[in-house]
Amino acid sequence: MSDLERLVQLLSKLPGLGPRSGRRAALALLKRRETLLEPLAAALAAAARNIRACSECGNLDTTDPCSICADARRDPGLLCVVEDVADLWAIERTKSFAGRYHVLGGTLSAIDGVGPDELRIPKLVERARGAREVVIALNATVEGQTTAHYVAERLGETGASVTRLAHGVPVGGELDYLDEGTLAAALKARRPL
Amino acid sequence: MSDLERLVQLLSKLPGLGPRSGRRAALALLKRRETLLEPLAAALAAAARNIRACSECGNLDTTDPCSICADARRDPGLLCVVEDVADLWAIERTKSFAGRYHVLGGTLSAIDGVGPDELRIPKLVERARGAREVVIALNATVEGQTTAHYVAERLGETGASVTRLAHGVPVGGELDYLDEGTLAAALKARRPL
Repeated sequence: MSDLERLVQLLSKLPGLGPRSGRRAALALLKRRETLLEPLAAALAAAARNIRACSECGNLDTTDPCSICADARRDPGLLCVVEDVADLWAIERTKSFAGRYHVLGGTLSAIDGVGPDELRIPKLVERARGAREVVIALNATVEGQTTAHYVAERLGETGASVTRLAHGVPVGGELDYLDEGTLAAALKARRPL
Repeated sequence: MSDLERLVQLLSKLPGLGPRSGRRAALALLKRRETLLEPLAAALAAAARNIRACSECGNLDTTDPCSICADARRDPGLLCVVEDVADLWAIERTKSFAGRYHVLGGTLSAIDGVGPDELRIPKLVERARGAREVVIALNATVEGQTTAHYVAERLGETGASVTRLAHGVPVGGELDYLDEGTLAAALKARRPL
């Protein structure tokens, strides 16, 4: 396989890219050698060398513990359980969470052989013993909710209070386009105006 | 900027990816270090080191002249003019062209300052002097066709016969969904059955 075919093949494996867009990406890279190709090669090499999972929370960072776990201003008594680092980033972008995280790295799945140990749940239970509250911020999918129930049960013994994200109408969302489940949940959880 | 932010930023610049899919791609890479991240870093470095534009036709390859120009079985009397290496690949996939190529690398654009010299048209004219036929396979867009007309005019002096791709109904296409221009062209170019 030529260098070019190999590059296209690997780019095609990125999420969101396929064989066709992989080819386009390879050509774009080769057209922009100094500004894109070489910097990306260097960034990937640096990432491979420097980025690791935080042994405390599972976040990805160049330091271990990660910059969030090492930040003394972040409340160690408030933990937020997320499925993935992408979800951690999404919550960080809201700038409205001052606690720490616990990244499970997936959801429970008997079929794929993902059990509590693979999801670092024993470590979560250990961390939760010192915590006041654990917010479960898993995806509102079947897999996410199954995992959430299991996690909540396991956290029962820790003494931390276990909460979950609210369901409701997305900000800026139109009722007409909302599914019935969300709308019913928003109605049930209505609040004084 | 952290290593991770830098990686996301560069991935987001790939065609077909944005900030969100750039983040997803970065996480996918970090989850698959040995099978994706490290091979991609190596493939990019190899591409930066080894792949160059063929000085004859403009194709991208690890050799100069490229493997197509160097292939004695490919008819040097038949040239195919394409806008981009992606178009060259598209024609190669048909396995129905046994000549050689000339990659312009874009279309004429007064606004962007792309003139005949930027598109390697003098080199094309030079190559066409030794050729029997030049097939112009530029995109059927306004820019592509403007460039095609200019190229055809410049090739007038070379003695090579200048042809273009046929317009018509795409194979497997439904008439009902086809634009009028294509259908009119297909009707005009009808052939005995």
